[in-house]
Amino acid sequence: MFKLYYAPGTCALATHIALEEAAAPYEAELVDFRSQRQRSPEYLAVNPKGRVPALVTENGMLTETPALLLFVAQRFPAAELAPLGDPFVLAQVQEFNSYLCSTVHVAHAHRMRGTRWADDLAAIEAMKRKVPENVTQCFELIEHKLLKGPWVMGDRYTICDPYLFTIASWIEGDGVDITKVPRVMEHRRRMLARPAVQRAVAAEGTQMP
Amino acid sequence: MFKLYYAPGTCALATHIALEEAAAPYEAELVDFRSQRQRSPEYLAVNPKGRVPALVTENGMLTETPALLLFVAQRFPAAELAPLGDPFVLAQVQEFNSYLCSTVHVAHAHRMRGTRWADDLAAIEAMKRKVPENVTQCFELIEHKLLKGPWVMGDRYTICDPYLFTIASWIEGDGVDITKVPRVMEHRRRMLARPAVQRAVAAEGTQMP
Repeated sequence: MFKLYYAPGTCALATHIALEEAAAPYEAELVDFRSQRQRSPEYLAVNPKGRVPALVTENGMLTETPALLLFVAQRFPAAELAPLGDPFVLAQVQEFNSYLCSTVHVAHAHRMRGTRWADDLAAIEAMKRKVPENVTQCFELIEHKLLKGPWVMGDRYTICDPYLFTIASWIEGDGVDITKVPRVMEHRRRMLARPAVQRAVAAEGTQMP
Repeated sequence: MFKLYYAPGTCALATHIALEEAAAPYEAELVDFRSQRQRSPEYLAVNPKGRVPALVTENGMLTETPALLLFVAQRFPAAELAPLGDPFVLAQVQEFNSYLCSTVHVAHAHRMRGTRWADDLAAIEAMKRKVPENVTQCFELIEHKLLKGPWVMGDRYTICDPYLFTIASWIEGDGVDITKVPRVMEHRRRMLARPAVQRAVAAEGTQMP
């Protein structure tokens, strides 16, 4: 039995959905950010990074969404969540997820987590002001170049889809004009029709835009 | 024959080293950042992200260092650059590389690429001031928790090693007190003794600290 540590409104939702898609044996445990539990000695003993998601497995603890998603796909191959045997197509999957974590999520994080990168209040406000432009630019690349459709990688649902769905659920808040990204919005609707997505969203109490 | 687009002093070095370790058939092509070639229509036709690395393969173009490293490992399995068949250990490899791309590289990038996240000059200066603290914090986690030694994953050299080596080559410039991270420095020396590393460093004309 795995244990997934999550908080609502975070990228942990992507792994939560993948675990549901894979019918993996797991339980989900809330890390309450309002009480700063992610910084408690007890949670730091689980995950020294003080973030979510963290997944406790039979072999030990894992973090970082792209790694967790590939782990779920490889550990539960019957769910066919990634093209494991094809180096080029698997690299495309990893390329997309790596872009989400290192560029898109980072662009978004400058809205609410500016204190990570500057101490100065005016600087934090300056970062916030640029978030709509940066996140829009990322999602225009996704809309026009990366999202093949109907799923991210084309006809086949993969571990890219829960991750895109999760980060795309933040774009209204980031100030993106969603009429510019209709294919991303269509992808959201298609995801919300999947029972695994509905279960994870309901379990977290996620407020979908 | 692959083609690797690179620029010296960038994270492209990690993929360059991996290609050398794998004895992959490739040629390396410089993208001259001084003349802003990464933003030229010709280069944007290769890689719409306007960044390096980009690897042109027989099947198409790939970007994003963690994806490229896994691709090289999977495409050239005889080089044994990743524990491909073990979901948990492979997830640990991906976890480390994902941390480097989404947290460590991003912490570093606020020194020279602040214009990505704010337009205001004072804000860009405020970001720069926090870089030594942030990069030090990342490397203390690597030093004390993540780097198993002698290689990142322990006795076995993997695709984590060229990536750590590359990002660690920036830490003097980022203002990290290297006496605090002796195991990272020992890792650098061990890497520099490898012929594949020497070839990639020499080919790029990289200035090692």
